[in-house]
Amino acid sequence: MQRNGQQIEQGLLYEQVATHVSEMITSGALQPGERVPSVRQLCKQLSVSVSTVMQAYRMLEDQQMIRAVPQSGYYVRQPRMAIQLPTASDNAPYPKELDAISLSARIAEDMTRPDMLQLGAALPDSQVLPIDKINKLFGHVTREYGPQAHEYAVPPGRLELRRQIAKRLIDSGCSVNPDDILVTTGATEAISLSLRAVTEPGDVVAIESPTFFFFLDMIRCMKLKVQEIATHPDTGMDLDALENAMQQKQIRVILLASNFPNPLGTLMSTENKQRLVALARKYNVTIIEDEIYGDLSFDGTRPASLRAFDDGQTVITLGSFSKTISPGLRVGWCVPGKYKAQVMDLKLTTDHASATLPQLLVATYLEQHGYDHHLRKLRKQYQKQVDQFRQAIARYFPAGTRITRPKGGYIIWVQMSVKVDTMKLHHEAIKHDISIAPGEIFSAIGRYKNCMRINCGLVWSDKIEAAIKTLGDLVKAQIG
Amino acid sequence: MQRNGQQIEQGLLYEQVATHVSEMITSGALQPGERVPSVRQLCKQLSVSVSTVMQAYRMLEDQQMIRAVPQSGYYVRQPRMAIQLPTASDNAPYPKELDAISLSARIAEDMTRPDMLQLGAALPDSQVLPIDKINKLFGHVTREYGPQAHEYAVPPGRLELRRQIAKRLIDSGCSVNPDDILVTTGATEAISLSLRAVTEPGDVVAIESPTFFFFLDMIRCMKLKVQEIATHPDTGMDLDALENAMQQKQIRVILLASNFPNPLGTLMSTENKQRLVALARKYNVTIIEDEIYGDLSFDGTRPASLRAFDDGQTVITLGSFSKTISPGLRVGWCVPGKYKAQVMDLKLTTDHASATLPQLLVATYLEQHGYDHHLRKLRKQYQKQVDQFRQAIARYFPAGTRITRPKGGYIIWVQMSVKVDTMKLHHEAIKHDISIAPGEIFSAIGRYKNCMRINCGLVWSDKIEAAIKTLGDLVKAQIG
Repeated sequence: MQRNGQQIEQGLLYEQVATHVSEMITSGALQPGERVPSVRQLCKQLSVSVSTVMQAYRMLEDQQMIRAVPQSGYYVRQPRMAIQLPTASDNAPYPKELDAISLSARIAEDMTRPDMLQLGAALPDSQVLPIDKINKLFGHVTREYGPQAHEYAVPPGRLELRRQIAKRLIDSGCSVNPDDILVTTGATEAISLSLRAVTEPGDVVAIESPTFFFFLDMIRCMKLKVQEIATHPDTGMDLDALENAMQQKQIRVILLASNFPNPLGTLMSTENKQRLVALARKYNVTIIEDEIYGDLSFDGTRPASLRAFDDGQTVITLGSFSKTISPGLRVGWCVPGKYKAQVMDLKLTTDHASATLPQLLVATYLEQHGYDHHLRKLRKQYQKQVDQFRQAIARYFPAGTRITRPKGGYIIWVQMSVKVDTMKLHHEAIKHDISIAPGEIFSAIGRYKNCMRINCGLVWSDKIEAAIKTLGDLVKAQIG
Repeated sequence: MQRNGQQIEQGLLYEQVATHVSEMITSGALQPGERVPSVRQLCKQLSVSVSTVMQAYRMLEDQQMIRAVPQSGYYVRQPRMAIQLPTASDNAPYPKELDAISLSARIAEDMTRPDMLQLGAALPDSQVLPIDKINKLFGHVTREYGPQAHEYAVPPGRLELRRQIAKRLIDSGCSVNPDDILVTTGATEAISLSLRAVTEPGDVVAIESPTFFFFLDMIRCMKLKVQEIATHPDTGMDLDALENAMQQKQIRVILLASNFPNPLGTLMSTENKQRLVALARKYNVTIIEDEIYGDLSFDGTRPASLRAFDDGQTVITLGSFSKTISPGLRVGWCVPGKYKAQVMDLKLTTDHASATLPQLLVATYLEQHGYDHHLRKLRKQYQKQVDQFRQAIARYFPAGTRITRPKGGYIIWVQMSVKVDTMKLHHEAIKHDISIAPGEIFSAIGRYKNCMRINCGLVWSDKIEAAIKTLGDLVKAQIG
């Protein structure tokens, strides 16, 4: 293993060194808690430079294989733990009307506290987003568009952006043209307008159980009822259970994500996607599909959206760039299909138009082809973060803690002993400046009191490790 | 009148020259159509420089006193015409449910055509807005706020902005603190959320007749009914007529602007404002007050808002910076008073948050005290434009055409012979690349077919003069 001066080979070299050491660990030659060879030893042994070994050790540290002990050296970490998935859920017995103002306003309030570690909100870390690039495009955009950059971007929104979105939708199997797309103020507005276009007060909306609490808040604000549908923590919505519910109840809309839903992070198979669209057609139900995490698959391929198996009669698909470019720009989109006129009408009377500069910034960024490169890095980064959170929870939480293994996105769902009350945990954690999302706000009928959602959007740090340990201690204290 | 080298005196000098010539016109010494003294003649006669006379003549041109004829010289214009106000309206006989998708979507579509002269939309000219200043603040904002500029500005929105809005509300007599304010995506969202918070489908909303067609669209989208209330073209809503309607019908909300409403541009007296709030209290009705034009009074003083006479129990006040800073930034605000929790809840489930960068840009601009200086110039500019449009319509339209004399804002309302059909005019004008807003979309019961709203937000130009002439010709042809 001779040193090679070329940068690209150098990259391979430190990976070879890392593999060499990690094999010593996985083979058992080096046991948990043991010291790994010192940097100096390994340099000599492999005839490589100090910087190569340092790079290899930093990589193994990132992978949670070894840990640094200041003034002492690197040690083998405790082994990766086998983590069980949460249990599957079943259908709720009845459609439920929602009445109280929920906790999500409180979660939003927590988000405004800068000292709070945001494990309760589905927030990406600004470090991993291309906000510097976006900021640098500002001068270009104002020169290119002049006063137009400050004029109303009347619905359907800036054509430059809709063109880019239409182009990207090809990857998810959707053939739509820019005129089929409406620009919205984030995915939230896209969902809200779609639900308002399709439903009347009292209608029943089928959702996954557990589901993103914001969906429940919207359903409540529109005076709709919610029917929770069974899910499996690996494959998503249970379609037999869905059909069962459709036969028994007047379901008007299915609101879900087939790709990496919040909070389960599951991926629906292509067969199931086709079956779901066919079921919706059969029972004359509209599907509203949230694709906000669709670009964030860990295996790198963009999965098909439900709209790929539809012609716009049954599926409304929508998404945003809040999880991949910038949450604060509030750039979302909606393909309302046959509800286009109604959704446009509601958009005009809801906020008239979405902000123009954010639309032009995102359009310019997408056009200059930085996005795919960025996504490749981002998917790996989120996958790594999810892995770091999962391992840490497995380490610090009581035995028997179950954690989802998301296939994309950056959110995990944690199921604990039935003795655990995560609403209580939420209140206790706030005192330690840690926010979590308690499980019961993900259900309309008080389920999931022993579950919580954890945001892995943040770049791993000692502060986060300490917070996970604190949470683990609080949970252990609850179990007693 | 000897030439004086100092810049400030020079300013006074050309004004003296202009006064000298305008007195010759108003005294009748120079008759309409006559040539005014040539620049050379006047230089000699008054012992002033060519540039001073030129400056004086340009000023008189701006004031519509004289006009330039290329290769010939300056001529006295036709005298300013005495313009009649439109007639007052009365209450509609019954509350009306709205069912069709109205013309406002079509108006919005016209707005996307760059070749169209936008006399139909209430658009400010980007030339008179401080968008260069805003653009220059971008670097400052991204340095100052770093990654925060791209994070969610969760409701109630960025505190920096709410502080500035609270400070400015003092001028309109409102004593509110930043926590009473919710940042919205333009005033449209503020109105939409307020209406949704206060009403149930089927409730009756009282509006001015005529009213901004967007209000009607919102009322329709929310399945509310509308009760049109009589107005006077100089003083706004007729409060006797309002009380009469309140006694007879179950009115739930009054949606209006007391300062420079769209389309009438009236100003309600302080006594009437107090009486209106008292009436609303007496009949347990909520007032939603649109202050979007409140900063644009022509006499330079900021009139009181209705909220100045309330404690937050009866009046929801709201506004935006779309007419004074930038429409495209979509920065609005709402003081929901006792409905705060409901409006916040609806905001979270409607678009989660408004875009962050626009909020920080506006906050920074307001904080650096450029806004008041800008407003002083802008009010004069809009007043001048309104005057130019009024005079031109008086010149080119048939005798008997009545035009509002707004006290602020930049919108006029034109009433013509009952033989005129402005919906037909709208279709005819589109062929000439001119958009107008036909009167009937300002009423729920088909009134105002012989009226139209004209946008004077655009800086006067030959193109506009030609368009007004074209419209006048089309109207004359309709009358036959």
